[in-house]
Amino acid sequence: MSVLIVGSTALDSIKTPKAENPRLLGGSASHAAVAASFFCPVNLVGVVGDDFPQRYLQLYRKHRINLGGLQIQPGKTFHWSGEYEANMNRRRTLLTELGVFETFTPTLPQALRKTPFVLLANIAPSLQSHVLDQAQRPKFVAADTMDLWLNIALPDLLRLLKRLDAFVLNDSEAHQLTGEDNLFAALKKLHKLGPKYVIIKEGSHGSMLSSPGGIFLCPAYPVPNLVDPTGAGDSFVGAMMGYLAAANGPIDRHIRRAMVYGSVVASFCCEGFGLQRTATLTRGQIERRVKELGRLTKF
Amino acid sequence: MSVLIVGSTALDSIKTPKAENPRLLGGSASHAAVAASFFCPVNLVGVVGDDFPQRYLQLYRKHRINLGGLQIQPGKTFHWSGEYEANMNRRRTLLTELGVFETFTPTLPQALRKTPFVLLANIAPSLQSHVLDQAQRPKFVAADTMDLWLNIALPDLLRLLKRLDAFVLNDSEAHQLTGEDNLFAALKKLHKLGPKYVIIKEGSHGSMLSSPGGIFLCPAYPVPNLVDPTGAGDSFVGAMMGYLAAANGPIDRHIRRAMVYGSVVASFCCEGFGLQRTATLTRGQIERRVKELGRLTKF
Repeated sequence: MSVLIVGSTALDSIKTPKAENPRLLGGSASHAAVAASFFCPVNLVGVVGDDFPQRYLQLYRKHRINLGGLQIQPGKTFHWSGEYEANMNRRRTLLTELGVFETFTPTLPQALRKTPFVLLANIAPSLQSHVLDQAQRPKFVAADTMDLWLNIALPDLLRLLKRLDAFVLNDSEAHQLTGEDNLFAALKKLHKLGPKYVIIKEGSHGSMLSSPGGIFLCPAYPVPNLVDPTGAGDSFVGAMMGYLAAANGPIDRHIRRAMVYGSVVASFCCEGFGLQRTATLTRGQIERRVKELGRLTKF
Repeated sequence: MSVLIVGSTALDSIKTPKAENPRLLGGSASHAAVAASFFCPVNLVGVVGDDFPQRYLQLYRKHRINLGGLQIQPGKTFHWSGEYEANMNRRRTLLTELGVFETFTPTLPQALRKTPFVLLANIAPSLQSHVLDQAQRPKFVAADTMDLWLNIALPDLLRLLKRLDAFVLNDSEAHQLTGEDNLFAALKKLHKLGPKYVIIKEGSHGSMLSSPGGIFLCPAYPVPNLVDPTGAGDSFVGAMMGYLAAANGPIDRHIRRAMVYGSVVASFCCEGFGLQRTATLTRGQIERRVKELGRLTKF
């Protein structure tokens, strides 16, 4: 089965203590779409300006990503610039130029409205809801978010949550959203807000699933050479949804392995700037690292 | 086989946002010894003052801990007082009264010198070395430490490291000791300093082993009700060494499961103040949680 992915499609200028890379292909939907493409057909919904480099369109196409839902509008592509601290744990935004993204309204072409798996990658929750308004009876809907929306669009986010199967957020967002320091209390409140599956991302410490099938502690693959963590969380949800769409069986049967695949693709993402490493990835490399993660965690 | 454990034996006054508990049984050796006692015979080496409550001696004895190496000296028992912040991730020391601990010199009774497994729980590295000077051909020696010794006794610690089989420290200490932000670079340097087995503790995120048998990512058992994390790290190494001593086979064959048992006993430790929960623990409860941790991490 195929997955529909909506989110930001951007140019990222990223500075780390070791290097500086201007105008890389970035955005939540770009990372998620390429990550999902190793598993199933992907339909991308987003917007770019007429300055968007041809080579990035080719990169999407190389991964057989359907661009029928990608709007190319007169103006500038969303441009984000950020800088990481020495230990790569914290980053600060240097610049945000919204460009054509400022007035983006995601519109699903008729052909995409019945896509069974829908990933609402990080973007304003009102836009995530707008995509769901157009989707026709999707089989499984997951959404990611970020602290910004908790701060400036909480009512929109709460409305969206009622419509999700799975909600993905990081640990600090879970605490902020629920007001609970205790993770289990936070999970309980999150389920009450709507989603049956709640996935808490903890960066290099892995992730945790809370679901009808219980708790799953998903390990992170330990990255020997961390180059740039931008997009790792988007890669995680992208690969996870791609794997679930390809498996196309009961979610509870496949979601643990789907998360492990997400974890592995995210680890590759961290090994290059932007999408540089992910874009050269092969399914074989992913499989080898999934097996290795099995060995690293066996007891 | 049996394990010899040297470290601090103290009275801890612990304040959390929810409660305040004065003069609990604490100290690295107390936590480690009780944790190890579920697996093998334990010999405790430490010092307390003549104010040390009888009920705490009884608690040791209830766990069949041999107190032949516990000195009872005129004066006051080491007293530490600390306060945890709301999320329990950080604590600050309110008071440290060394008492008889200030002039403590660990002396091994003749009968304990051949104990095959030696755990040098957190204490000044010069004292850890002094214990090794008296030990006769131990089979396996592990040491824990804390940031204080990196700051005020680094040469002593470096001398000790050459004599260890296993070194246990937390992630920030690993970065501080090696000057490496990258964990793998840090591990490489740590092995060069002596120990064949390096274990990095990451609190509620679990731990990581680097050894001749490769890397092992050990999960933390997710604690539903975190009451007081004091002593969790000591419980982890104590249970790990107890399990290894009981297994008494090749270290590489048993160390992963030993760490998982350490992780589980540490999780119980966090569910009560001081040793309150650990002291009521049964081997059956430990086994059930080990099995559950297997289920929580299976994919």
